[in-house]
Amino acid sequence: MNTSDLTARLAAVVCAVEAELARLLPEPHGREASLLEAMRWAVLGGGKRFRAFLVCATGELYGADEAACRRVGAAVELLHAYSLVHDDLPAMDDAELRRGRPTVHRAFDEATAILAGDALQALAFEVLAREDWPASAEVRIELVRGLAEAAGSRGMCAGQAIDLIAERESLDLAETARLQQLKTGALVAFSVDAGALLGAAPQTERIPLRRFAQALGLAFQIRDDILDATSDVATLGKDVGRDADAGKATFVSLLGLDGARAELLRLKQQAATILSELPRDTALLHAIFDWVTMRQT
Amino acid sequence: MNTSDLTARLAAVVCAVEAELARLLPEPHGREASLLEAMRWAVLGGGKRFRAFLVCATGELYGADEAACRRVGAAVELLHAYSLVHDDLPAMDDAELRRGRPTVHRAFDEATAILAGDALQALAFEVLAREDWPASAEVRIELVRGLAEAAGSRGMCAGQAIDLIAERESLDLAETARLQQLKTGALVAFSVDAGALLGAAPQTERIPLRRFAQALGLAFQIRDDILDATSDVATLGKDVGRDADAGKATFVSLLGLDGARAELLRLKQQAATILSELPRDTALLHAIFDWVTMRQT
Repeated sequence: MNTSDLTARLAAVVCAVEAELARLLPEPHGREASLLEAMRWAVLGGGKRFRAFLVCATGELYGADEAACRRVGAAVELLHAYSLVHDDLPAMDDAELRRGRPTVHRAFDEATAILAGDALQALAFEVLAREDWPASAEVRIELVRGLAEAAGSRGMCAGQAIDLIAERESLDLAETARLQQLKTGALVAFSVDAGALLGAAPQTERIPLRRFAQALGLAFQIRDDILDATSDVATLGKDVGRDADAGKATFVSLLGLDGARAELLRLKQQAATILSELPRDTALLHAIFDWVTMRQT
Repeated sequence: MNTSDLTARLAAVVCAVEAELARLLPEPHGREASLLEAMRWAVLGGGKRFRAFLVCATGELYGADEAACRRVGAAVELLHAYSLVHDDLPAMDDAELRRGRPTVHRAFDEATAILAGDALQALAFEVLAREDWPASAEVRIELVRGLAEAAGSRGMCAGQAIDLIAERESLDLAETARLQQLKTGALVAFSVDAGALLGAAPQTERIPLRRFAQALGLAFQIRDDILDATSDVATLGKDVGRDADAGKATFVSLLGLDGARAELLRLKQQAATILSELPRDTALLHAIFDWVTMRQT
């Protein structure tokens, strides 16, 4: 599979997930209209939808229902969007821009941003738990558990907490890798695993897929750090160089630019080895890994 | 049932739910220790556990499994605790005290409080979704959906958003009642409904129980407003008179003290009528209503 094939597939998933998100987010009404507007502002009109794409791509590998993949992809994007809203708050990263637009607390106010993030997290679980999409109660509850674990104090929130500490204390490479594994990797791994679950993949394949997802999540973050060190705000649509300015360890500060690029290559080889163990055509997953390590935004 | 019977029952539930919460909350460890400490600070060592008690009391009415009631009660308390942590933040109520102790952002810092709240919300859904307690996948997923709806932008978060507006714009009685129904009532109604679900109550009884819960939630808030207007900080363990100071409409400011007390009486009669329709011994629910309308903290 070449890059333009992948880009076309990605565009199709983005479009479908965008429509699903627009349908799932409540329309602004009543006295709480600004909360609902803030939720839509946070979620719609931007975003790579990388996590939703991972659900759909892995689901496709196992013949999962497309509507089910879209729903779970949307749930992951709602969860991810909430984390960005809270990450951007003045007490956290204090960011002004996200996806080329003012962050939620800038476009609305801080209290509305806190509540919009909270409500988006609840909505992520609600849309998984609802009966209006094709999945059994057993699958839906396993997804809720997986998403909650990836999101909470043994996953994303722990990573964010360590990220706060990284401003004051210097982390070594192993600690930085663990931070990223929790902060980004847990949700990336959930996305891959959810696609496999929706396609009823055998347990023997779900284990290597999770290892693939870990390598992918780490590669994603290293590429982010490289872009953050070499790109400009107009290209990225968000503030750049913030981590370095805050004195936080990044893969680039720990390994250097060349070292970070070498680590990407190592992860790519590791991912290829893992995928070669799977008894199916994994061209799409290979292409996703390439795209992650070469993307420009 | 007299008041001392109820107090003894409440104490037993508080004790059991407290133990369940202590077990469910992760022990502090690793670089993320302060996040985990903040979560425990927010949840343990205080709180009336009123919502957990409602789950257990309604569950008892229908012969539900006690361990299942404790688990769901703990989940509701985790959700409630997260909402208090975020409500207390400087951008929201900017509160210094909660349950007689410094609020989470005072005891730790603002960023940790935001993340601890986020992680507590995820944990609430996680403990419902896990398989380590006696409930079918169908029951667990219905509980997740109910809790998510009660917590999100059609429930608690909407109420909190309207509460923010109430500082700038004056709400009339109907709007104040809707605010409270969303902010407090949705979670109270979920608690009653969850107990009925765990006991496999017939749908014909779940509908009047929800109406009872609505009256109970409203009575709870009116009693809160009365206490806020007449009590002192030492008794309540939290800042008093804050709503009135912020110019927010309360049931006391809208109805006067006598009017608010009369409304409590009207709700009590309404609740008694609803309960009389149920073909079982509802003495415990009557006693809970009395306790709510007469409590001193």
